[in-house]
Amino acid sequence: MNLPLGYVYATTYAGIRQVEKDDLALIVSGMPANAAAVFTQNRVQAAPVRLGRSHLKASKGLVGAVVINAGNANCATRTGDAVALATCKAAARLLRLPVTQVVPSSTGVIGVELDPRKIIDALPRLVSGLSADGFDAVARAIMTTDLVPKTAFAEARLRRGAVRVAGMTKGSGMIQPMMATTLGFVMTDALLLPAQLRAMLKRGVERSYNRISVDGDTSTNDTLLLLANGASGVRPLPGELAMVEAAITDCMERLAQQIARDGEGARKFVTIVVTGAPDNQAAARMARAIANSPLVKTAIAGSDPNWGRILSAAGNAGVAFDPAKTDIRMQGVAVCQGGLAAPFSEQELKTRLDAADCEIRLAIRGKGKGEARFWTCDLTEGYIRINASYRT
Amino acid sequence: MNLPLGYVYATTYAGIRQVEKDDLALIVSGMPANAAAVFTQNRVQAAPVRLGRSHLKASKGLVGAVVINAGNANCATRTGDAVALATCKAAARLLRLPVTQVVPSSTGVIGVELDPRKIIDALPRLVSGLSADGFDAVARAIMTTDLVPKTAFAEARLRRGAVRVAGMTKGSGMIQPMMATTLGFVMTDALLLPAQLRAMLKRGVERSYNRISVDGDTSTNDTLLLLANGASGVRPLPGELAMVEAAITDCMERLAQQIARDGEGARKFVTIVVTGAPDNQAAARMARAIANSPLVKTAIAGSDPNWGRILSAAGNAGVAFDPAKTDIRMQGVAVCQGGLAAPFSEQELKTRLDAADCEIRLAIRGKGKGEARFWTCDLTEGYIRINASYRT
Repeated sequence: MNLPLGYVYATTYAGIRQVEKDDLALIVSGMPANAAAVFTQNRVQAAPVRLGRSHLKASKGLVGAVVINAGNANCATRTGDAVALATCKAAARLLRLPVTQVVPSSTGVIGVELDPRKIIDALPRLVSGLSADGFDAVARAIMTTDLVPKTAFAEARLRRGAVRVAGMTKGSGMIQPMMATTLGFVMTDALLLPAQLRAMLKRGVERSYNRISVDGDTSTNDTLLLLANGASGVRPLPGELAMVEAAITDCMERLAQQIARDGEGARKFVTIVVTGAPDNQAAARMARAIANSPLVKTAIAGSDPNWGRILSAAGNAGVAFDPAKTDIRMQGVAVCQGGLAAPFSEQELKTRLDAADCEIRLAIRGKGKGEARFWTCDLTEGYIRINASYRT
Repeated sequence: MNLPLGYVYATTYAGIRQVEKDDLALIVSGMPANAAAVFTQNRVQAAPVRLGRSHLKASKGLVGAVVINAGNANCATRTGDAVALATCKAAARLLRLPVTQVVPSSTGVIGVELDPRKIIDALPRLVSGLSADGFDAVARAIMTTDLVPKTAFAEARLRRGAVRVAGMTKGSGMIQPMMATTLGFVMTDALLLPAQLRAMLKRGVERSYNRISVDGDTSTNDTLLLLANGASGVRPLPGELAMVEAAITDCMERLAQQIARDGEGARKFVTIVVTGAPDNQAAARMARAIANSPLVKTAIAGSDPNWGRILSAAGNAGVAFDPAKTDIRMQGVAVCQGGLAAPFSEQELKTRLDAADCEIRLAIRGKGKGEARFWTCDLTEGYIRINASYRT
């Protein structure tokens, strides 16, 4: 893996979370990067989400640094706005940046005041520890109930040289991103204009973060930030933009998939493919309805080829389709043809469904060209255990 | 409890479900009753739902008998339409009714062919066993994963005499009724016109079955049937219609609450009250979003006063409101005031949340007059255990 040029990283334990595990991270671009971001559509938005949006607007999309903490969402807090601003100011002063070029980002428990001293006191040692090698440490520091860090890398070899993309993300519960997920940071060293970045981010999110769900809950802190600092010195030719976008989208898609795979309590990763819907949005709605059905998710947990639940869930998506023209496959095995039971060996399919990767394909016969892929995980007793006790 | 006059009931084991427990039931009104019904809005609809709707239309809302089976939903089945029709024909012949005055109803596994012989062979002994005492037996025969039968009774004392209402329902999983729930039958002996019944049913469903959710899944078989046979001889005076409607609505509300209380794996019954929303529909959307949040439901299971999850869930309802003007109470204790943490004893509230009945109140300060009550249950490991193995 080749990291994008021109970015440095650092992490530390600032005492925000109770367990002594790095909880504060800093990403700095040597030259301020063009940036595009998407934020949660939850009506309740955390202070860093509000400040990040306003900073991006004020700086005309230039970002020099991102300060991220885990263990406290800084949401529904009395001092939230002031804390987020004080954090950015302290980082800006140390890094000699305009404060609007610093984006704050928080994840963790909602409704608990975040002590700004913990962050401000830790920032000098973060800044002095900045290094190009710190990428993986940041991916670990932003984890909450995540079991594994989530990173993805891509490269596009253009006429004038290679450009690199690297991304990291976190998230395991409260996951049904609408335009973004809990936290995601994608860096590239390509030279891209803000308008190009925004368009790539918008299209990419639609195919990645907006196509996963763990539990149907949308967080208050969802943020996905795409940075392009141009440190490669390579400005893609007009005909090469699609290659760069493919690398960025690929990276985002793999990050999103890792979130679904690491869903709280999940033992299985589930890919849902819907084809033949009236349009792509309708296909995505049907796929999401299947992915969000607790009855489908528990059937997958139990390796139960219970296609009736899949058909019923699709029927609740608000999309007009003819069940009698609907085929369903699980692990490649036809279980439902034309809305009716297909002959299959239940015992054999049960064994195939014991795999860590499961696939559900729902195809509507006819003229519809709409299709969508969606990723989720099974629903196990582990999800209950984690969320009946862990305070998020 | 006084049952409505003029209805008789019978049940038997017809071999449809594997466990030897009554799975076939018959409700007969001595004189055909005026009827109103609501059915599932799932795009995938079971054969009995389709036939029931068409019979009610053809008979102009007259119903003489209802044939109900548990253990097989007769949905997504090759022979479904023919089986439902054959069942109605056999019952009509035995009861000397026009076939369109018989409504079929099924609940159970989806996608398995239902053998009509089992029902047709059992019908003669059902008919000969009809009795006014069979009400409770029917309520038990229609159960699937239900742990308890669900019934409710009401009476209205009118000028010309009393009229009685009795209802029964079933349902425990795949419960987020949209206009109706899995199966519900409400009988009254009042003399009511079809148009009056339809209006009462529509308004009543909005306040009862459409205000509960166990897992956010809407079934393919949801049916709620309201029968009024006039056997009391009492036609309510115009000024008394509201009293009769109150009795019917009360009955439906208590039936719906029993479904939420008996949610699969549930240990707690949760009442959610939202006030101060822009209108009642907006309040209901917010209450439903809270009720459907797995993070809220698991927090209740763990007696965790995690109000941040409640606020976040409300923020996902697609309703415009100001979090800074939002107060939340759990078990009467203020946990969030103006969108911020309120001071409360966490240990004491945890103990209060151990109760079998929990209440969440979310109030938006301001001019909004919209309010809604909604009922759900907690989400426990029991839900997973039931649904990772039981084939519904």
